[in-house]
Amino acid sequence: MAATPQTNTTLTAIAAELMAHERFCLCGHLNPDGDCLGSELALAAALRQAGKQVSCLVATDDPVDGRFAFLPGFEGLMPASAFDGAFDVFVAVDVPTTERLADAAAVHGRAPLTVTIDHHAVDSRMADLSFTDPEAPSTTTLVWELAGLLPIERSADVALCAYTGLATDTGRFQYQNADAVAFSAAAEMVRAGADPALVSREVYQQRSLASVRLEAAALGRMELLCGGAGALSWITWADKEACRAQKADAEPLVDALRNIAGVRVACMLREGEGIVRGSLRAKDGTDVAAIARELGGGGHRAAAGFTFEGTLDEARSALRSRLEQLLEAPSA
Amino acid sequence: MAATPQTNTTLTAIAAELMAHERFCLCGHLNPDGDCLGSELALAAALRQAGKQVSCLVATDDPVDGRFAFLPGFEGLMPASAFDGAFDVFVAVDVPTTERLADAAAVHGRAPLTVTIDHHAVDSRMADLSFTDPEAPSTTTLVWELAGLLPIERSADVALCAYTGLATDTGRFQYQNADAVAFSAAAEMVRAGADPALVSREVYQQRSLASVRLEAAALGRMELLCGGAGALSWITWADKEACRAQKADAEPLVDALRNIAGVRVACMLREGEGIVRGSLRAKDGTDVAAIARELGGGGHRAAAGFTFEGTLDEARSALRSRLEQLLEAPSA
Repeated sequence: MAATPQTNTTLTAIAAELMAHERFCLCGHLNPDGDCLGSELALAAALRQAGKQVSCLVATDDPVDGRFAFLPGFEGLMPASAFDGAFDVFVAVDVPTTERLADAAAVHGRAPLTVTIDHHAVDSRMADLSFTDPEAPSTTTLVWELAGLLPIERSADVALCAYTGLATDTGRFQYQNADAVAFSAAAEMVRAGADPALVSREVYQQRSLASVRLEAAALGRMELLCGGAGALSWITWADKEACRAQKADAEPLVDALRNIAGVRVACMLREGEGIVRGSLRAKDGTDVAAIARELGGGGHRAAAGFTFEGTLDEARSALRSRLEQLLEAPSA
Repeated sequence: MAATPQTNTTLTAIAAELMAHERFCLCGHLNPDGDCLGSELALAAALRQAGKQVSCLVATDDPVDGRFAFLPGFEGLMPASAFDGAFDVFVAVDVPTTERLADAAAVHGRAPLTVTIDHHAVDSRMADLSFTDPEAPSTTTLVWELAGLLPIERSADVALCAYTGLATDTGRFQYQNADAVAFSAAAEMVRAGADPALVSREVYQQRSLASVRLEAAALGRMELLCGGAGALSWITWADKEACRAQKADAEPLVDALRNIAGVRVACMLREGEGIVRGSLRAKDGTDVAAIARELGGGGHRAAAGFTFEGTLDEARSALRSRLEQLLEAPSA
């Protein structure tokens, strides 16, 4: 399906339409991240300030990332499968296609009016009213702007939720989308009461013990290739069992490899049942997506992933030779 | 010595005074960090844009932190001991007392006119003209403002240096000083050409291999106390030898312990010759400075350190009992 980005209206028109209704159902994408939860909860807080009734759904029954439990309204999040209330408007935030709404797609399907707000390219058939801006640093910056068009003074709760999405989606203001718009929006949110130190403490200073133990194992056995330009490491099934690790615990590990001085490309392997999942990162513009594609995966130049069919030893050997080839090639 | 913060003039008056002279000598404090180097190099770039001659000094002959080598003008930094040129104005940036100028104090002493710009409390006797603002998130934000008062369009080089100081002194916009002023200033700097992703890559994605190896060792042997509220680990002299580690390589380790979910207090010990150095961090307002003082050190409530006379085993045992006492006490 071609997901054509489409804005068929303005935030001003959406604000007016929202004010013309009373009962709202909001939802973000499955496996919601900080921008998704921040968008949903910021909009919920703003609509409630404007006197509206709001239900906040999550797309599946899976537990929501507990690092975001400090966000005002988090405790009211409800699995879409458990929701059978009546409502006037369904607002999807940070959701590019209805597939990504999972269980909430059924609720979306019976909505009298649908609205979508996103900073990704959005399937234009998804909603009656859509506003998408792929240049926006986060969906929460769009929600923040929208909330500013409602007849309210945006509260500290709205600001905190919006700031959390902005800070997480810009990698704490370190990714390419940390532009002047991002910093100006952050200044407004902080002025309205968002506390950056609190957000950092809640989101980034709560690493699981399992993640730390996995990192110790992975860093301890790391292999350097091509004089240190490549870093390769892995965690085994036994590591995961010993650390009682969840999937999310392994996610930060590839960044620990990438952050080493001199490393241009990092690869982290995670042993599964008959398969090995791999994450690749490049620091200097080297294209790691090409390796990921060769191994049946994909992604961006700087961040890609794949699922390898075979043993950990086979995956290591496949990666070693491909990384060496990539890093020894004259740079493009 | 009582270091009374004192602003005896305005940035506008300083800008006018700078424009009335031709030859400048700039210097920051010894062991210069990102804010110090960023302030010095931002001001140097701005003064050069205004047609001035500028010498950039460093306070000692020690090597300067190579992570900042990407800053425009870094290659022109010169040890104060090697400088014997003539100049009209000495500008100290991010330097609270002349003691912190080390070898550059002599150059400062023979200056026809001295200026100081800082966001710390400054010894009021230090300079003829001083502007200090302890509320400013970084010294570079003051230098940025000052450069805006010169008859130039602040260049991307000025912006990059200023942004680097701001980003590092706010801990990547995560400390208490990451306020609305900080974000507004960052927005201006980015609009003028500073690249946050570049700064992050250069400053934060260049961890030494030794530091990573030490972290693997420290995380692998970490002890949790009081049900996970305390985290204690250590690196031995043998670890340092095996990893060929420098002092700076051990500095990030205590933060890795602090960042674990549930950990309220983290302590990292580093074995020296007949002594053990310790770093303490608190995440929840617990006062770790009290422990540091008992062990002959000091610091702030949330971050403190000490030098223990004795063996690593003795230090571990002393810390364990003190941490247990602290963490089991009813919270104040």
